[in-house]
Amino acid sequence: MAKIWDKGYDADKLVSAFTVGKDRELDLRLAKYDVLGSMAHIKMLTAIGLLEAGEEKILRGGLQDILREIDNGNFRLDEDAEDIHSQVEAILTQKFGELGKKIHSGRSRNDQVLVDLKLFFKDEIRKMKDEALELFALLQSLSERFKDVLLPGYTHGQVAMPSSFGLWFGAYAETLVDDMYVLSAAWKTSDQNPLGSAAGYGSSFPLDREMTTRELHFSTMSYNVIAAQMGRGKTERTLAYAVASFASTLNKLAADNCMYLSPNFGFISYPDNLTTGSSIMPHKKNPDVWELIRAHSNRLQSLPNEISLLTTNLPHGYHRDFQLLKEVLFPALETLHRLFEMTHFMLEHVSVHNDILSDAKYAYLFTVEEVNRRVLRGVPFRDAYKQVGEEVQRGTFHAERTVHHTHAGSIGNLCTDEIRRKMEDAAGGIGTPL
Amino acid sequence: MAKIWDKGYDADKLVSAFTVGKDRELDLRLAKYDVLGSMAHIKMLTAIGLLEAGEEKILRGGLQDILREIDNGNFRLDEDAEDIHSQVEAILTQKFGELGKKIHSGRSRNDQVLVDLKLFFKDEIRKMKDEALELFALLQSLSERFKDVLLPGYTHGQVAMPSSFGLWFGAYAETLVDDMYVLSAAWKTSDQNPLGSAAGYGSSFPLDREMTTRELHFSTMSYNVIAAQMGRGKTERTLAYAVASFASTLNKLAADNCMYLSPNFGFISYPDNLTTGSSIMPHKKNPDVWELIRAHSNRLQSLPNEISLLTTNLPHGYHRDFQLLKEVLFPALETLHRLFEMTHFMLEHVSVHNDILSDAKYAYLFTVEEVNRRVLRGVPFRDAYKQVGEEVQRGTFHAERTVHHTHAGSIGNLCTDEIRRKMEDAAGGIGTPL
Amino acid sequence: MAKIWDKGYDADKLVSAFTVGKDRELDLRLAKYDVLGSMAHIKMLTAIGLLEAGEEKILRGGLQDILREIDNGNFRLDEDAEDIHSQVEAILTQKFGELGKKIHSGRSRNDQVLVDLKLFFKDEIRKMKDEALELFALLQSLSERFKDVLLPGYTHGQVAMPSSFGLWFGAYAETLVDDMYVLSAAWKTSDQNPLGSAAGYGSSFPLDREMTTRELHFSTMSYNVIAAQMGRGKTERTLAYAVASFASTLNKLAADNCMYLSPNFGFISYPDNLTTGSSIMPHKKNPDVWELIRAHSNRLQSLPNEISLLTTNLPHGYHRDFQLLKEVLFPALETLHRLFEMTHFMLEHVSVHNDILSDAKYAYLFTVEEVNRRVLRGVPFRDAYKQVGEEVQRGTFHAERTVHHTHAGSIGNLCTDEIRRKMEDAAGGIGTPL
Amino acid sequence: MAKIWDKGYDADKLVSAFTVGKDRELDLRLAKYDVLGSMAHIKMLTAIGLLEAGEEKILRGGLQDILREIDNGNFRLDEDAEDIHSQVEAILTQKFGELGKKIHSGRSRNDQVLVDLKLFFKDEIRKMKDEALELFALLQSLSERFKDVLLPGYTHGQVAMPSSFGLWFGAYAETLVDDMYVLSAAWKTSDQNPLGSAAGYGSSFPLDREMTTRELHFSTMSYNVIAAQMGRGKTERTLAYAVASFASTLNKLAADNCMYLSPNFGFISYPDNLTTGSSIMPHKKNPDVWELIRAHSNRLQSLPNEISLLTTNLPHGYHRDFQLLKEVLFPALETLHRLFEMTHFMLEHVSVHNDILSDAKYAYLFTVEEVNRRVLRGVPFRDAYKQVGEEVQRGTFHAERTVHHTHAGSIGNLCTDEIRRKMEDAAGGIGTPL
Repeated sequence: MAKIWDKGYDADKLVSAFTVGKDRELDLRLAKYDVLGSMAHIKMLTAIGLLEAGEEKILRGGLQDILREIDNGNFRLDEDAEDIHSQVEAILTQKFGELGKKIHSGRSRNDQVLVDLKLFFKDEIRKMKDEALELFALLQSLSERFKDVLLPGYTHGQVAMPSSFGLWFGAYAETLVDDMYVLSAAWKTSDQNPLGSAAGYGSSFPLDREMTTRELHFSTMSYNVIAAQMGRGKTERTLAYAVASFASTLNKLAADNCMYLSPNFGFISYPDNLTTGSSIMPHKKNPDVWELIRAHSNRLQSLPNEISLLTTNLPHGYHRDFQLLKEVLFPALETLHRLFEMTHFMLEHVSVHNDILSDAKYAYLFTVEEVNRRVLRGVPFRDAYKQVGEEVQRGTFHAERTVHHTHAGSIGNLCTDEIRRKMEDAAGGIGTPL
Repeated sequence: MAKIWDKGYDADKLVSAFTVGKDRELDLRLAKYDVLGSMAHIKMLTAIGLLEAGEEKILRGGLQDILREIDNGNFRLDEDAEDIHSQVEAILTQKFGELGKKIHSGRSRNDQVLVDLKLFFKDEIRKMKDEALELFALLQSLSERFKDVLLPGYTHGQVAMPSSFGLWFGAYAETLVDDMYVLSAAWKTSDQNPLGSAAGYGSSFPLDREMTTRELHFSTMSYNVIAAQMGRGKTERTLAYAVASFASTLNKLAADNCMYLSPNFGFISYPDNLTTGSSIMPHKKNPDVWELIRAHSNRLQSLPNEISLLTTNLPHGYHRDFQLLKEVLFPALETLHRLFEMTHFMLEHVSVHNDILSDAKYAYLFTVEEVNRRVLRGVPFRDAYKQVGEEVQRGTFHAERTVHHTHAGSIGNLCTDEIRRKMEDAAGGIGTPL
Repeated sequence: MAKIWDKGYDADKLVSAFTVGKDRELDLRLAKYDVLGSMAHIKMLTAIGLLEAGEEKILRGGLQDILREIDNGNFRLDEDAEDIHSQVEAILTQKFGELGKKIHSGRSRNDQVLVDLKLFFKDEIRKMKDEALELFALLQSLSERFKDVLLPGYTHGQVAMPSSFGLWFGAYAETLVDDMYVLSAAWKTSDQNPLGSAAGYGSSFPLDREMTTRELHFSTMSYNVIAAQMGRGKTERTLAYAVASFASTLNKLAADNCMYLSPNFGFISYPDNLTTGSSIMPHKKNPDVWELIRAHSNRLQSLPNEISLLTTNLPHGYHRDFQLLKEVLFPALETLHRLFEMTHFMLEHVSVHNDILSDAKYAYLFTVEEVNRRVLRGVPFRDAYKQVGEEVQRGTFHAERTVHHTHAGSIGNLCTDEIRRKMEDAAGGIGTPL
Repeated sequence: MAKIWDKGYDADKLVSAFTVGKDRELDLRLAKYDVLGSMAHIKMLTAIGLLEAGEEKILRGGLQDILREIDNGNFRLDEDAEDIHSQVEAILTQKFGELGKKIHSGRSRNDQVLVDLKLFFKDEIRKMKDEALELFALLQSLSERFKDVLLPGYTHGQVAMPSSFGLWFGAYAETLVDDMYVLSAAWKTSDQNPLGSAAGYGSSFPLDREMTTRELHFSTMSYNVIAAQMGRGKTERTLAYAVASFASTLNKLAADNCMYLSPNFGFISYPDNLTTGSSIMPHKKNPDVWELIRAHSNRLQSLPNEISLLTTNLPHGYHRDFQLLKEVLFPALETLHRLFEMTHFMLEHVSVHNDILSDAKYAYLFTVEEVNRRVLRGVPFRDAYKQVGEEVQRGTFHAERTVHHTHAGSIGNLCTDEIRRKMEDAAGGIGTPL
């Protein structure tokens, strides 16, 4: 092994490269929130007399300049900046000298990154909520549009009962409601101000934490300063649950699509440019997009476990280990946005096939229907069952290939409005971010 | 390998033993809910004319007898009963002949187990809520009782800042609020009636699902029948998130206890019969209980992942794979109850040590405090920092070993009431189960 | 919450019940190995003069009596025995008084459980090897028997190329070779004597560890006493890798079977009593056994992760946490044996269908074959491809539905012998256990 | 949500961006192996008459040019190249027209990527082996250098028995042997030629797979073409086991270092530039590097699980899901190399402290030693134990703070040579890659 430090290596650089890791790249996501956090902090410092009004004005001006750079997409971390916090301080110090360092009074890197993360997560959660709601709306509209097109329903992978595209699309809409409940828990966990917890043990300065809570639009605060620090890991974990929950829904939807696109099913199709074909195998329409959604959603489902491994068995208090939480979670958030986008995109182009059930292999799909039909006509269940069984045995069974389901949530009564109201309730708790 | 089927094996028995698995044992937990579900179902069947009032009365009587057996602890599954549903039906059929089978009209094993599970989970969630609230109350009382006893606070495993037992106990109380948010999501996911979804594709009978929803005290229903079936796996997943979330809190508390009990820390102690000692190693107080809480809470944290593995990449619709969800989740629920109990038990007996900070190795714990003190007295931060640094270098640094933290959530201002109110809000959404 | 310790609870019992956990049940699996380990230990103690020959004879007699009880299946752990080691010592002490305790000289619970586990694992590994070899042989024989029966081969879930049952069965045989490599690593990890490492820091007695290594038929020893102790967790981990590796193969085989049994494929079938049917849905043959193999193999795949969670972030040295490793791993070993058994059982009864490829949807399966056929006849690839593409477009493509694959590992040249030799090599390293 | 496809979006680009994913970046790692695989393939095609000698010469020249570019670090994938295979083909076709496409005869993307991966993994495994052996050597030398420096040994986190730096360093060396067994399994899984399996169902061309096996220096081949395809996932899984196994060793070593560096232990230290300090908290030496090694090794331990999730429940045959295996595994391999490097680097700079055991809290560390000492002098164990116990109670216990351990693997007999030989055996099976 050629050790990189063999000749003339620089220990400081080696250590620095290893400890900084991907922070310079990941912290760009936090830049905006870091500045907003600092603005609230200096306003509070001024209110409690640790900063003069004139000083605050100067610092606020500097922070606003940085914010503008960020909004313009021009903000970068310098080569020698360890993280976003150093970068912001460096800019202010370069501009304003010693005054620039004053933004650090009564604050530590620990609560600074905590507040950045909470603000960032709140924006991400809101974005996920919007994406989920858009997908929900699309699924509901597909459900209504294709409510009369029948499908075979499977149990144990065996043809079992009549189903419909109305049911199928609508089911994924309603399942997103369950995911929204988890997202709401993530929101509540994120919506608590940790600023003022300093290094996890508080400060001897008379910080006004209620004020920064209001300024930063948090609904409440992580009161106990150790609890605020323990929010690192806990917040990421709950957010990871929400991500994994959505991912498990998308995974199943993708698995369904792959199955329905197989020539052995052939229930749906997509335009040629959304699948991959072959000129000599015209039947072949590889569902690459759905396969990749299925695969990516599996990676996302492993998130909670990665967070458990990173944080477990460690006593309370900050450990540098937590730095990797960003590396685990940030790309996953991006992936989930992308999966919502691609799922939406694909479903906008889906074609459903008619007359699926006319195929001979679906003949017995209606036996249960027929038994029930006779029962409703007054034949005792036992006799109806026996009659149908004998007709099947004799090969004389001919089902009426229609269904008359009327109860709530069934093929003929999709309850689209009720489900929409349930979703509105579920999503209602997730407020407007900063 | 001596194949068990080599001589005279019975294929039916082999298959049956494998497919029944642990159901006979696990389904005992569901017995009560199965009967309650059946009671609601037959009431509804009567209302829609599929059962006569007299028939319902007879069946209800039979179900009440079974419920009594269950409450008395005398209910068992027969050797040849495949699961709880077969057992209940077998009893009714033995008593009432053909009538006994009528409880199955308009219902399938699938929605029957779904409703049993949701009712069972609701009771379990309520129990967890109560346990968490009791632990919360104990932690808050310990926090208040020991609010003046100081501790060293660590970051990176290094002595960093003054902390206190008030902060420490109070932090775990507040962290339980975050877990409660996830439990609340699990509650909402469980609190939806799946009955009437039949095999996952609905029924041609005019089932009144609103009625069973009311009868079984569900707040709403899983409308779409496929969505109701997809609740299998999704409900367990969200419940597993809640279990794992609590587990991660208990894990950290256990890790802290193990650390504090090490002779290299020596911050707390427990009565001799709660630890394991040795007559020739009097210093040795093995914290077996905390080590096992730490370990069990790790197993619980692996739950969501086990559920992901069991359910991923499968299209919608029932698969027999889901049977194992019970085997994964039911013992985990028991374990969590036990961990709450043992954690509570241990903390009721904890002794905290005074004068911890008088040890020389904690001398520099107060340097940051001292700098801040001088800043508050008017010394510019830069100068204060320099002065203290020089005193430390010269060995003349003598800190006042007291802390005067006043801001919200700090050593001197624990915000116990505010945190209690936050917990009340968080737990409020979790209603009263059946 | 009714706290079990509220009235008249007994702290000792509560702690004992929690700390003993499932040990009394799980340790029965270790009984035999514990006795064998003690026999080797006392022989060695005698050789180094810590036990007299007469004493050893008495103790050996006592141990042999216990071994007989174990072999007869009559051995049980008393209610008050904490674990297998206490039980054995209690029996000897009851019989021989103070002498009974002498088996503990120069030994600790830690190295005693370590040696028990290694011996137990070696037997388990050998059993897995035998089971895997039996399944391998069955798969190879099925591969040869059905080598001429063609199947559609799928990529992306799309019909792609001709395949065969010869290939299909043979593939799973060969894949077991890869699993065997991992099992071999588990064997080597287990095949190292930890006895003599005491509590993980060695002993001041002049123990002859080479002697116990020979006596217990270990190939080598875990020399360093801390390394021997670190074997706890590491040994289980590697064994878990082997278990998970086999499980992933069985999972795929089960997934294939579920798919092939779906009426949309219909490639194979099983006798009625190995699937679950319905009299009115004669097409329905639920593949419950395969679904449960698929599900159980997923639980087994989660093993390595559970072990990681239990052991990670902990410094070296024994922690009580490791007790749970038994609870995680022992049932998993049982499950794997059962999965091998059920897989073997099912495959012994499989029927493969002929003429699968005559179905219209497999028509284009042979386009690639036809292009290659023309290329081999001298047509440039480009032209051959174009010709076939045009024939397909015009609907005039008529493939010869046969395949002439001759290269190693292809439909016409299964290399059954070569694969068998590779398996013999792979399994060869796994020796004969105690 | 602003949908990126709302106005003038290009479906092809969207799909292409999503499906290509990170391949363009990751495939650079495979470039070299892709060219080597192609060279072997065209040589074989020539031997079986599908390519003329002149054609092969031209193509080989083109491939050598590409190889040179790769070696020079100048090779890049074009914007419109989907993966490495397309890029290579594009270059050859640009240079040689239709001839360039001939490298694809009798080959598919599937077996091409399979062979690339196996060759790449073999090189990676060899690199890991070298890194592990270097770390092993360093640990053994530290073990010998500090063999006389005593440490307290802990069980249950409690001070238990005397240990030594000799034992401690040596233990990690020997534990790497266990990891090497798993790496050896990964080697054997990788060392099988999949080329010729085409799309997983073989080819009608008379491919000479033995020839490419020899050319590419594989020890054997994946015979069965479906088995070769199933190697995707299986190979990555076994390699992930090896990575996770090493990671678990490094994790424990890092956890030990963090603990030993805590002021509550203070057993070792590192130069100031390898830790992070503070001028006013001179005691604070944050072990960031070890904390990050601990954290990264946790991410690596989650690898096998991610692979399980990606591949489970899917039937055999290629699925696009497998593309993500590269995204999961490749960065992990890089991380492991980096962790070996940083671990090595840190340990080269470790200082161990003398006189650790003179601290009062380690007084009772020698009680067991003293009991044994008396037993060896002839005092019955029972009496010796009682005597020491009473001395401890009376406060008159004064142990000789030295240890005289002589048995194999103990403080006084580290068996460094024996362990080295065991390592040589373990690593011997891992051959020289391409």
